[in-house]
Amino acid sequence: MVKAPVLTPRAEDFPRWYQELINKAELADNGPVRGTMVIRPYGYGLWERMQQEMDARIKAAGASNAYFPLFIPQSYLTKEAEHVEGFAPELAVVTHGGGKELEEPIVVRPTSETIINEYFSKWVQSYRDLPLLINQWANVVRWEMRPRVFLRTSEFLWQEGHTAHATYEDARDYAARIHRDVYYDFMVNVLGIDVVLGRKTAKERFAGAINTLTLEGMMGDGKALQMGTSHELGQNFAKAFHTQYLSKDGKQELVWQTSWGVSTRMVGGLIMSHGDDSGLRVPPRLAPVQAVVLAIKADEAVVAKVREIADRLTAAGVRVQVDDRTDIPFGRRAVDWELKGVPVRIEVGPRDLENGTAMLARRIPGGKEPVRIGEIEALLPKILEEDQALLLAQSRERREDRTVDTTTVEEAAEAAATGWARIPWATLGPEGEAALAEQGVSVRCLVAADGSVPDRDDQPGNVAIVSRAY
Amino acid sequence: MVKAPVLTPRAEDFPRWYQELINKAELADNGPVRGTMVIRPYGYGLWERMQQEMDARIKAAGASNAYFPLFIPQSYLTKEAEHVEGFAPELAVVTHGGGKELEEPIVVRPTSETIINEYFSKWVQSYRDLPLLINQWANVVRWEMRPRVFLRTSEFLWQEGHTAHATYEDARDYAARIHRDVYYDFMVNVLGIDVVLGRKTAKERFAGAINTLTLEGMMGDGKALQMGTSHELGQNFAKAFHTQYLSKDGKQELVWQTSWGVSTRMVGGLIMSHGDDSGLRVPPRLAPVQAVVLAIKADEAVVAKVREIADRLTAAGVRVQVDDRTDIPFGRRAVDWELKGVPVRIEVGPRDLENGTAMLARRIPGGKEPVRIGEIEALLPKILEEDQALLLAQSRERREDRTVDTTTVEEAAEAAATGWARIPWATLGPEGEAALAEQGVSVRCLVAADGSVPDRDDQPGNVAIVSRAY
Repeated sequence: MVKAPVLTPRAEDFPRWYQELINKAELADNGPVRGTMVIRPYGYGLWERMQQEMDARIKAAGASNAYFPLFIPQSYLTKEAEHVEGFAPELAVVTHGGGKELEEPIVVRPTSETIINEYFSKWVQSYRDLPLLINQWANVVRWEMRPRVFLRTSEFLWQEGHTAHATYEDARDYAARIHRDVYYDFMVNVLGIDVVLGRKTAKERFAGAINTLTLEGMMGDGKALQMGTSHELGQNFAKAFHTQYLSKDGKQELVWQTSWGVSTRMVGGLIMSHGDDSGLRVPPRLAPVQAVVLAIKADEAVVAKVREIADRLTAAGVRVQVDDRTDIPFGRRAVDWELKGVPVRIEVGPRDLENGTAMLARRIPGGKEPVRIGEIEALLPKILEEDQALLLAQSRERREDRTVDTTTVEEAAEAAATGWARIPWATLGPEGEAALAEQGVSVRCLVAADGSVPDRDDQPGNVAIVSRAY
Repeated sequence: MVKAPVLTPRAEDFPRWYQELINKAELADNGPVRGTMVIRPYGYGLWERMQQEMDARIKAAGASNAYFPLFIPQSYLTKEAEHVEGFAPELAVVTHGGGKELEEPIVVRPTSETIINEYFSKWVQSYRDLPLLINQWANVVRWEMRPRVFLRTSEFLWQEGHTAHATYEDARDYAARIHRDVYYDFMVNVLGIDVVLGRKTAKERFAGAINTLTLEGMMGDGKALQMGTSHELGQNFAKAFHTQYLSKDGKQELVWQTSWGVSTRMVGGLIMSHGDDSGLRVPPRLAPVQAVVLAIKADEAVVAKVREIADRLTAAGVRVQVDDRTDIPFGRRAVDWELKGVPVRIEVGPRDLENGTAMLARRIPGGKEPVRIGEIEALLPKILEEDQALLLAQSRERREDRTVDTTTVEEAAEAAATGWARIPWATLGPEGEAALAEQGVSVRCLVAADGSVPDRDDQPGNVAIVSRAY
């Protein structure tokens, strides 16, 4: 008997597989207002773990959390010319409050550079107040014409960091530090995604930035996903908002700034990086539930043993959930945990008890085998680390296998049909970039010849990574 | 020489003292859109600690976090008649998105009962899906005519719990569990505020609820602050949104629901409960910084010793900050930490080093004395628990001292000029309540004769607590 597949296979229809996985694994639903989403408890659990891991790294980089208002006077947006041009088409506008029409329309924040600079300009007085390193966890709204859950939603959750520095060098180094020590470290070591660190071309820069650093991941279908960005804002917002400080020499100087963010889009990246035809696979270091212990049948001794195993694993530092919902058929529960991508299932039935064993099913490499119950505690942490490493290795392998070195724009466009192309930036240039854009292919980032992040677009040896993208 | 006071004394002008404290302790600023606020890092640190402590208790009560959209179609609000009547005057309305006028106006959530019920009605199918216990941490918007930072702001941060149950009893018990095991436990044992648990009268109930449980705290000026509420919603929203389940008997039944929330208003309550004329006093269990170790002078040995003490305290589980900003006069830094209410200051100068001692200043009881550096580690946890207990005792003492038993509406109104009055509900009743309201005095809650929370407004022996309120 051939089982009907739980999901449309990725090879058949990747976008449909993605949407089905999100529904069936109960990660999210579409919201009633176009482009919004409801993040369900299991999906939100993934985001909460991302927040915990990221927040610790952001604080280790010296930034403090704060909170700025959702509502921004429309006039603020217009103070930085490029910024307003970039965001105007995506704005949601509040025109009525408390039953009255407002004198000045209010914008629902699409990002907070403007309102934050309004306050930085009050808080920063002297060089002693610098660097000022602020982060906020918040919702933002950008009206989406082609929404897709987690990837492009009209409202999303994110963190946005905003900093002010005394010198260009200090701001540049801080943007790079966030890029590398916070974002790259988290994405590689927790998400298990082999992202590439690079620099955006002028065309792809954030509206109002002088430089945008990016992290690009290759998804299961070979497309790219921008997983996070860190911007050098130069003095653009400082000029617009008069954010100045009194230097040691007694002069008024404009500050140099950065901003940087990652969002619930990372949940989409997680799905498209590690998901397979049976559902999601969650890296153990991220997983809100690392192991689920299942009672196969409603048997008192079985349920007691399941709880005992779970308690011992919890004590050993594993994040565990008990599944003793024996009024639901066991097979359906097993499929559900596969869909949700919990790394390890420990299944206990009456026969297992007699043998002193349990079945241990591993979601990430696949496979299932009996283990002695007394050994599970010692085994699990080892298994979880192996699985974590395996996901990263698979992500790296895919990227390497599906990245092609090319020497012409035509070759690059062809390679981008199934994966990524590398092409010298000196060959491609802004003209080639424009030509690729007409075919739906973009320059994801520039990397230096030695794989590092270039300081300039036109640094000799720069290579462009081009692909289709989400 | 008499020092000018840092703040307007509370006895002189309590509201002004409150506003000055918030500014000078760098807790928050007013936002640019009327009634909004910017929560600065130190203020946000207080909120983050509240979130951590509350979140753990909410999860222990079995609820999972999720996230529902900020934007609610206006038509949802109108589905529950009392609800829309209660919230209509406070709504912010989005009429334009992505450069176009919207077909249906969108409301920025003032609370999420309506949008959550829309999804509960999809997710709940059978009795097996119940109880459904959901919480979200989010921002909400309620247009404020008389805004005051933290207490009444047009946008505030909160958690809102929403649950669905199979029976009336289960919903009632869960609302009471949140009231007692989550909110009361947190407010008494972490915030150190001796709140009263009670039941709102019909007049003061949440729009759409059949019962509202409340926690009322007495502030430093004798007024009351509603610190949190837990509502039984009955089947009001279930009827409006057809939230039904298939019972064990195979019948379609409407669910019974609860909702419950606490907000950044608690930061205001913290200030007005524990603040004194020198600034805030933060209960140690809440404090993001429990002890600050200050270098009095820019002396290498002093700074090294300060770091060593901080490291040892951190290892002992104390939340510590080092203050080695020796380019700022020591006196100014000491006043600043007093304003911020950090429980313990450990001050180290060159002379202290010679003696092997440091000055230990205690913000909560007041006072300053030299201690041997080697003993600080053992001393601190003891001191912090003492200070925690002292704040609660002071809060309790104030409430007891300033609560008067009264027998007539006139007496109650008079007592409410300086504190709280207790008056039998049988004497007061809805008519007396209306008469008090004309004098700016409200019934904060009803408590039973034995101090417990009554099951009904008209339970014999019920006592009304009446006062002016924030």
